[in-house]
Amino acid sequence: MNTDPKSDDGSIARRLARLGLSLPPPIVAPGGVALPFPFVHVVGRRVFVSGHGPQAPDGSLAPLRGKLGRELDLTQGREAARLTALSVLGSLQRALGSLDAIGRWCRVFGMVASAPGFNRQPEVINGFSALILEVFGDEVGLHARSAVGMAELPFDIPVEVEAEIELRDDGPLG
Amino acid sequence: MNTDPKSDDGSIARRLARLGLSLPPPIVAPGGVALPFPFVHVVGRRVFVSGHGPQAPDGSLAPLRGKLGRELDLTQGREAARLTALSVLGSLQRALGSLDAIGRWCRVFGMVASAPGFNRQPEVINGFSALILEVFGDEVGLHARSAVGMAELPFDIPVEVEAEIELRDDGPLG
Amino acid sequence: MNTDPKSDDGSIARRLARLGLSLPPPIVAPGGVALPFPFVHVVGRRVFVSGHGPQAPDGSLAPLRGKLGRELDLTQGREAARLTALSVLGSLQRALGSLDAIGRWCRVFGMVASAPGFNRQPEVINGFSALILEVFGDEVGLHARSAVGMAELPFDIPVEVEAEIELRDDGPLG
Repeated sequence: MNTDPKSDDGSIARRLARLGLSLPPPIVAPGGVALPFPFVHVVGRRVFVSGHGPQAPDGSLAPLRGKLGRELDLTQGREAARLTALSVLGSLQRALGSLDAIGRWCRVFGMVASAPGFNRQPEVINGFSALILEVFGDEVGLHARSAVGMAELPFDIPVEVEAEIELRDDGPLG
Repeated sequence: MNTDPKSDDGSIARRLARLGLSLPPPIVAPGGVALPFPFVHVVGRRVFVSGHGPQAPDGSLAPLRGKLGRELDLTQGREAARLTALSVLGSLQRALGSLDAIGRWCRVFGMVASAPGFNRQPEVINGFSALILEVFGDEVGLHARSAVGMAELPFDIPVEVEAEIELRDDGPLG
Repeated sequence: MNTDPKSDDGSIARRLARLGLSLPPPIVAPGGVALPFPFVHVVGRRVFVSGHGPQAPDGSLAPLRGKLGRELDLTQGREAARLTALSVLGSLQRALGSLDAIGRWCRVFGMVASAPGFNRQPEVINGFSALILEVFGDEVGLHARSAVGMAELPFDIPVEVEAEIELRDDGPLG
């Protein structure tokens, strides 16, 4: 399995480049916290994506922290969701070798750290969905979705997304 | 694919009619909010149901809003969960053509907007499960379930349910 | 299907015994609450695990109650997550006849009842993941994971875990 993200020269990688998007390096967890699970877990043709948050370009968590409706406004929340999508794509590219291995997006579970009274979770998670649809197109990128308000998220991140996708039928088994 | 819900004359549709239940029309999202995802997403024989809330008969969100343990009591919460089940069935009927295409209910994730100290989420989500079991019977309708308390839900709805089902083996592929 | 947990003499059961771990009896729900769903729901080779909390040795809910960051500290939260793992294994053994029927852990969704400002959900849910990895090993036990903070959980339990696993290819269909 190809784990060098730079070597993916498939059509999705080229589309990312055309859109001026670059994927972040492996996730650097805050010091001292063991995360004993893979960020992407392939079982047959099913791909389980662990909860991801927004990453900074150096791989650490993005400085966007806190809750929507308190520390962060809608624009910042949407940007956090967009950065979360890039984080997920980085993990997928490293785990699968190429984003072209993805056959269908299935399910996106979008979690938004929400201060009391903040009810605009769909508009926040639209930052995630818009990027996935732009990169993969409607055929592959379409996904079922929930966008809901959490009391707290790890490390005070504002957005966390868990997802499931399926590999292409004609690709190698993961 | 048949998208006219009125044309489903299968056995589940007849059971709904016998029970005096009618399904709501397509979901009308509150003005101005883009919801760029399908409410039902079929991938092979797997059917991913996006987060649904309670609908009013005209397709808009039901006027039941707020949190359990604050604006709404247990009876209202159960009614919200029942309306959410009808909303899901409406989406499934439109997406699948007939509710008879459903082979097995798999997973129900029941989210309840909960004021501090409200811990009776299972009794709320029983309003969802009871309707599914009544309509589909124990063989098809049985489902794994979680019922948990959210800080906030979109549009201040009190209940949101995400689910997964599988199509019948002998039906046409979705 | 073998539903007597004592009769499982497979390799996982022996490993549990070697580790000095014993599985709790069937879940005794708090009085008067109907829970109209199976704790483990098998559909083909897919196994859906309903939300579980920590059990006491007599089958009732463990006395560990309340929120992380308020009633409970990190050590107690990790213990609650460990007890939740044992509860899940008890349900799986009763439903599947033997834990050896498990082919792959797929997804673990770890929910932590969180007081405002508690952001160490991953360290709590590590109590769940560590036990699963110890018992099943890295090959079978590895799982995708999210660990997030809930406003409230049923019965004031501090931890709830929902999961999905797959049965072994060469085992009997569930």
